[in-house]
Amino acid sequence: MPTTARAFAAFAPTEPLGPHRISRRDPGPRDVAIDIDYCGICHSDIHFLRGDWGPIPYPAVAGHEIIGRVTAVGDEVTRHSVGDTVGVGCMVDSCRTCPSCRESLENYCTGGGSVGTYMGVDRHTGGPTYGGYSSAIVVDEDFVLRIPGHLDPAGAAPLLCAGITTFSPLRHWEVGEGSTVGVVGLGGLGHMGVKLAAAMGAEVVVFTTSPHKVEDARDLGAHDVVISTDEEAMVAQARRFDFILDTVAAPHTLDPYVRSLRRDGTLCLLGAPAEPHPSPAVMPLIAGRRSVAGSLIGGIAETQEMLDFCGRHGITSQVETISMNGINEAHERMLRSDVKYRFVIEMQERERAPAGTVALG
Amino acid sequence: MPTTARAFAAFAPTEPLGPHRISRRDPGPRDVAIDIDYCGICHSDIHFLRGDWGPIPYPAVAGHEIIGRVTAVGDEVTRHSVGDTVGVGCMVDSCRTCPSCRESLENYCTGGGSVGTYMGVDRHTGGPTYGGYSSAIVVDEDFVLRIPGHLDPAGAAPLLCAGITTFSPLRHWEVGEGSTVGVVGLGGLGHMGVKLAAAMGAEVVVFTTSPHKVEDARDLGAHDVVISTDEEAMVAQARRFDFILDTVAAPHTLDPYVRSLRRDGTLCLLGAPAEPHPSPAVMPLIAGRRSVAGSLIGGIAETQEMLDFCGRHGITSQVETISMNGINEAHERMLRSDVKYRFVIEMQERERAPAGTVALG
Repeated sequence: MPTTARAFAAFAPTEPLGPHRISRRDPGPRDVAIDIDYCGICHSDIHFLRGDWGPIPYPAVAGHEIIGRVTAVGDEVTRHSVGDTVGVGCMVDSCRTCPSCRESLENYCTGGGSVGTYMGVDRHTGGPTYGGYSSAIVVDEDFVLRIPGHLDPAGAAPLLCAGITTFSPLRHWEVGEGSTVGVVGLGGLGHMGVKLAAAMGAEVVVFTTSPHKVEDARDLGAHDVVISTDEEAMVAQARRFDFILDTVAAPHTLDPYVRSLRRDGTLCLLGAPAEPHPSPAVMPLIAGRRSVAGSLIGGIAETQEMLDFCGRHGITSQVETISMNGINEAHERMLRSDVKYRFVIEMQERERAPAGTVALG
Repeated sequence: MPTTARAFAAFAPTEPLGPHRISRRDPGPRDVAIDIDYCGICHSDIHFLRGDWGPIPYPAVAGHEIIGRVTAVGDEVTRHSVGDTVGVGCMVDSCRTCPSCRESLENYCTGGGSVGTYMGVDRHTGGPTYGGYSSAIVVDEDFVLRIPGHLDPAGAAPLLCAGITTFSPLRHWEVGEGSTVGVVGLGGLGHMGVKLAAAMGAEVVVFTTSPHKVEDARDLGAHDVVISTDEEAMVAQARRFDFILDTVAAPHTLDPYVRSLRRDGTLCLLGAPAEPHPSPAVMPLIAGRRSVAGSLIGGIAETQEMLDFCGRHGITSQVETISMNGINEAHERMLRSDVKYRFVIEMQERERAPAGTVALG
């Protein structure tokens, strides 16, 4: 028997989001039913809801930085119990059998691709998946994460996307003590990249176009900040970095970053621009055996590893908490880069607020 | 006391090459004097001599695929003896102290860069270095390679540039048994890439625009050939390759090759185009954690390793031998891709030829 959940949905590409009721499948033997407490707002949510990545079925519900409490578990569930604080990230399922899935890199599933928490097709119902801008969700236990109990749950929500998206490449390219790491852009992803790389023991340098972010960057753990529009300062970075995490999706010239890499260094792109970046010069790649690479979120096992790492180091995201009916304003502010550094929706707020203050039925 | 050597030099960017006499330094205590028997002709020679890479001092002498015999050694030379068959590649010196030099990756020397066999500044004399289109050369013993005695010396000459340029990235990216490797372009570099990757135990697939090269590719050791202008055939390569060696310097779209890589695969560029390639799409990099990288020749230690590997596997380049006064025609034919697969100049030929047949004197 499917149950219904309250949600905030997009009904058309350009209209504001509004309240809606969605259906959640009845928990199967391997499912975990979760009441959602918090959901972070990722830039991908906006792109998806506006149809920037192709036509989507409306009404559509975004959100893939989910923190909640387990309310029911199926008979075969072994890893989660009623009352646990848990998380759900960008995926809720995958093929389980392709080489990537067998290595717990479900994010790179080649058996049809992992099932997105939104923008996916539910393998149980055949219907569209609905994300975390909602009061409840039902997820296969393999895609449910344990949240260290002492972390602030609102601040932990963005770890499920912004956290793992930066953690995974930092680990894959073996950042640690003795590494010098650059982080391009200080937004939702960038601020997590700084915190995580610093906690891994790296020397961290932020590249930003915004002089007013210098102090913030240092507060977050950066050892140095470079204003990327300052050509002289950029030239002075030549061969400084083992690894650079580029979190900026807007088209920009990659060459100064490639030249800032040491021999064998990697510039890792996390954002896909709508228009291509200017073509990177080949000679700086050849002359230092450097790489331009990309990385996509992370696997479930490493997401748990990241959460445990954040638990040990007391790392959460800097968040501004809003209510459900603040989503449209939050989206507008994100498009102006007016957020430090992540909006998180407080989902169960209506239960404490006076009737009528939140436009959810 | 410097000695003179006969050479074939460029006197201006657009004029044919002609005979010339150059000065070679008197061998110092660590130097090896070499009579050159063979010198391969690399595309870089043409670019250099025509000033494509910036203004150069004329007369200029190219050539960095050198095979010869040792005629004298300095007092402190321990690794080479008079009469040895030896090779000299793209470098004749480096700083010896930077991190790359200390790792025997002199090709990535950051202490001013390695000293090119041509297009460099001699650290002993302060004058320009002159390449292998000449009868003799004097080189520090650390930059002189041992040539396995049973290899055909003319065929071995291109190993010093085309060989190491393909061997080094194949080794660095750990190509071997079980790897599937693509080689884009079947020219001087590409045909060596095929031979070396096949000898390393990889499954080798050639990408070429030329249907008439299919049989050749198979003869060289390729297990499969894909006509890269056939869009359907290219789509069918999706996620097939661990590593692709792209030897084509002309601007071309990289995306079909990136999409042909498996997760964590690398497309390695060996040629720097005069105009940029179309900008590679970012999404295929992100969606498979793939990389676009570059690689530049190889270090001295790995050049020796490559030569020993070629000795064990009986690998040489396919060459067409010419005399010194055939250089201009060879350059013209190379610009039309009319060579299978490398021209090699036979330097000492004049001693056997009737007087007057070679315009060197």
